[in-house]
Amino acid sequence: MTGGGPIQTGAESLVRTLAGSGVELCFANPGTSEMHFVSALDRIQGVRSVLALFEGVATGAADGYYRMSGKPAATLLHLGPGLANGLANLHNARKARSGIVNIVGEHADYHIALDAPLTSDIEGIARPMSDWVKTCGSSATVGSDAAEAIRQSRSGAGRIATLVLPANTAWSEGGTPAMAGEPAPRHAASVDAIEQAARALSSPRTDGQPASRSALLLGGASLRGEALIWAGRIAAKTGCRLFAENLNARMERGRGRVRVERLPYPVTAAIGVLASIDRLVLCGARAPVGFFAYPGLPSVLTPDGCEVSTLTDVDGDITAALRSLAEALDAVHTPAAVNEAAGPQAITTGAITAAGIGAVLAEELPDDTVVVDESITTGRAFGSAIDSGAACDWLNSMGGSIGFGLPLALGAALAVPGRQVLALEGDGSALYTPQALWSMAREKARVTTVVFTNRSYEILKGELKNVGAGEAGQRARDMLTLDRPDIVWADLARSLGVPASQAYTLEQLRAQVRDSFASQGPALVEVIF
Amino acid sequence: MTGGGPIQTGAESLVRTLAGSGVELCFANPGTSEMHFVSALDRIQGVRSVLALFEGVATGAADGYYRMSGKPAATLLHLGPGLANGLANLHNARKARSGIVNIVGEHADYHIALDAPLTSDIEGIARPMSDWVKTCGSSATVGSDAAEAIRQSRSGAGRIATLVLPANTAWSEGGTPAMAGEPAPRHAASVDAIEQAARALSSPRTDGQPASRSALLLGGASLRGEALIWAGRIAAKTGCRLFAENLNARMERGRGRVRVERLPYPVTAAIGVLASIDRLVLCGARAPVGFFAYPGLPSVLTPDGCEVSTLTDVDGDITAALRSLAEALDAVHTPAAVNEAAGPQAITTGAITAAGIGAVLAEELPDDTVVVDESITTGRAFGSAIDSGAACDWLNSMGGSIGFGLPLALGAALAVPGRQVLALEGDGSALYTPQALWSMAREKARVTTVVFTNRSYEILKGELKNVGAGEAGQRARDMLTLDRPDIVWADLARSLGVPASQAYTLEQLRAQVRDSFASQGPALVEVIF
Repeated sequence: MTGGGPIQTGAESLVRTLAGSGVELCFANPGTSEMHFVSALDRIQGVRSVLALFEGVATGAADGYYRMSGKPAATLLHLGPGLANGLANLHNARKARSGIVNIVGEHADYHIALDAPLTSDIEGIARPMSDWVKTCGSSATVGSDAAEAIRQSRSGAGRIATLVLPANTAWSEGGTPAMAGEPAPRHAASVDAIEQAARALSSPRTDGQPASRSALLLGGASLRGEALIWAGRIAAKTGCRLFAENLNARMERGRGRVRVERLPYPVTAAIGVLASIDRLVLCGARAPVGFFAYPGLPSVLTPDGCEVSTLTDVDGDITAALRSLAEALDAVHTPAAVNEAAGPQAITTGAITAAGIGAVLAEELPDDTVVVDESITTGRAFGSAIDSGAACDWLNSMGGSIGFGLPLALGAALAVPGRQVLALEGDGSALYTPQALWSMAREKARVTTVVFTNRSYEILKGELKNVGAGEAGQRARDMLTLDRPDIVWADLARSLGVPASQAYTLEQLRAQVRDSFASQGPALVEVIF
Repeated sequence: MTGGGPIQTGAESLVRTLAGSGVELCFANPGTSEMHFVSALDRIQGVRSVLALFEGVATGAADGYYRMSGKPAATLLHLGPGLANGLANLHNARKARSGIVNIVGEHADYHIALDAPLTSDIEGIARPMSDWVKTCGSSATVGSDAAEAIRQSRSGAGRIATLVLPANTAWSEGGTPAMAGEPAPRHAASVDAIEQAARALSSPRTDGQPASRSALLLGGASLRGEALIWAGRIAAKTGCRLFAENLNARMERGRGRVRVERLPYPVTAAIGVLASIDRLVLCGARAPVGFFAYPGLPSVLTPDGCEVSTLTDVDGDITAALRSLAEALDAVHTPAAVNEAAGPQAITTGAITAAGIGAVLAEELPDDTVVVDESITTGRAFGSAIDSGAACDWLNSMGGSIGFGLPLALGAALAVPGRQVLALEGDGSALYTPQALWSMAREKARVTTVVFTNRSYEILKGELKNVGAGEAGQRARDMLTLDRPDIVWADLARSLGVPASQAYTLEQLRAQVRDSFASQGPALVEVIF
């Protein structure tokens, strides 16, 4: 896979470098300047190509693939505007600390000065959403440049690496494949940091405050697997509260999983939750701040005087740090508190209600479902019910840019093809990148998309009040509603090759999601209420 | 409209500045950080808001609006990722020299350092696709900053101005509306440039070469109105050839319009057309270069030794320059050669053919239709038939980024509501920004969209050969085809509120476009062949 004859083009060396370094997937929306790369992908085994009909699908899918596989995918984008169309989901991926290798086609280098129509400052476009950017100088260095891009994408928790590939560096001979080097190991938490965290969380506390005024705030890899179990033992032992950031790249939820409180999205609610905390230890998380600023409300959500310390940042060896902290606190054998099955709480028949949606989904979710949550206001109302359902992974937007959900679900499904993926979408949010549905159909991805059709940017109606801008008049309401005309999501999905249905009652919702889970392929359920 | 009480917010001063300076439309995809601007648009008369469900629709519509009205529209975009989603069509607009005022919401300035999820380098994102970028420093300067953005957008042929509006500069009091100043007048062609052009084109020529070896290449405003008529007289008088660039922001075509040869897109064909030219005069046009570079082919399309001179660039006073040139050549009263009705040439019944599509459209087009051409390969085959049809304006992508057509058609329809707009789309190209269909339905825009469903990126199959990358294997073909599943465009349009039909024969195409033209509202015709 990594050999190749003595004479090969830069494009061929690129494919061999990707394949030889374990980059198995390329989410592609190619154009003329990338035809040699497409041709090399055609002829050389090892990298599977997945066609996206819009670039934001490619970059969002690479994000989802990384979150579920831990491996970077490549994207193939067509010059500056193609990269531009992928930027919003690169923003989300970067904030989620996913690793991605973007290959951006560029004009032949001698053609750039002529300022042809598609000419633009590609490095300038890439830089705001990339951790590393390079333009290949010749076919001879394409392999080593790509190897460095791959190494960069794997650094720390994951990084965005963008490699610009002038067409003549792809088509010229002299390519030499290279093997991506190992990234630096993830750094260990310092002894001081562990001691400080232990002091902040230990119970009984030396300052006489109850332990429940201490909290451990989890982010990044601390929300799953062994790391989460260590965190749960620490909380059980010390009595500290165990928080997750409101938005997380990947969080284990459901029955049997360690019980964690997600910080709420609304600023006033988050301030309320944190009001009693005077010592906060961050583990892979950032100090909590408002998603937006609001007039008269603080941007920093912890109370004045709260001592905020960091056990480890998101790039560190989070599992080792939490194990060390558990050892320091003698919590290694303390059983963690876990989520339990709730008794019947919500009515799951009749009219669609938020509580009913949550209860139905919690009951119907197959084990190990991957849930991608872009349901905005609707999901916020039912999300907590999920913790009483089957164990699942829960994926949020970390960057806040709408349009991540459907692409992320596509990528997640390709990363873990044996598992069910469930995408929860608002009707507003799903319309930023609906092209992902077509790729789901082509790839027979096991994704059920549930669209909550409230025919409005419901979140913004609240925000209009929150920022003190008053009640919406007719012209403002027109900017916040998706009616006139109503969008028929079931028809839209079918037009792109995805089987679809409409649910007007909770019984219909239950039957339709059950059918879709059984289908092993893509489906869309439009929930109308 | 420009007054306002003594106390107003920055957002209010912004709306009053826009309205007072004649910016009548705002294509908006708002978020939380723009709620005060939305609220001000709600309460203050003068700026109509049009909701777009994806930002590329907003920026593309502003481009189309400018091309047909000559007036800048505003866009309202949500932080860095919202701007990023609009960049590709800003690229197209900038290359077409359209004027646009982008208002990009930003976090409150004190919130930026906290690096909340949506934080990004907005100015960095804006710069590659903007001619002017500024971030408002306080509510007191929002009005004057906006006035300068408007002035910038009107400079020369038109420019992209991007104003970043931190939320607190919008919500704080102290706003003061301002009036946009006049841009510098468009510069006149120099006497030397006019004399040189006259020498290059004059007939009989002093160097003994036939006049047909000289050519005038038109771009920008020289392709319409009085300017085009002057150009036609010059060509008739001198015998020089009259070329247009292959892609043009707005070009008059059809019966009775001055006859102009569009340079072909394929590099070898363009080189062939230009091979006999030894003097080329540019008027609002760029020296011709290949859209892409190809191995073994030149990037510069004029032959070696061709003398290329510039009468005026796109920012100049093009009409005055051509009139002066006509005077210098004593061509003021020479009648220009114009397009004539062709006799029956193509079979317009039975199976769909490219020639048949061209003939049917030429026969059915209402007078003064605005045609937006993003039909890529299909349109290239029938486009020339249009010159025998009714007079129309023909709008191309100048930046080459796919996804401009539907948004552009929306904006054009809002600029000239009394005229029919026809969007010609490939099935690949239309899927980058299908959300524009919904806005067409909401605005009752008089746009007929014709989608040519060849189920492939047909252009790329040719390009794969052109760049010497060989025949496509199965895996490459999968990257270039839109089948598996087939996209049903008629259903997709209906799901977004646009009436739609499918044409399998030329008779059906004729009947369906005729019906759609009669409907006075949006419609989509899916041509299947």
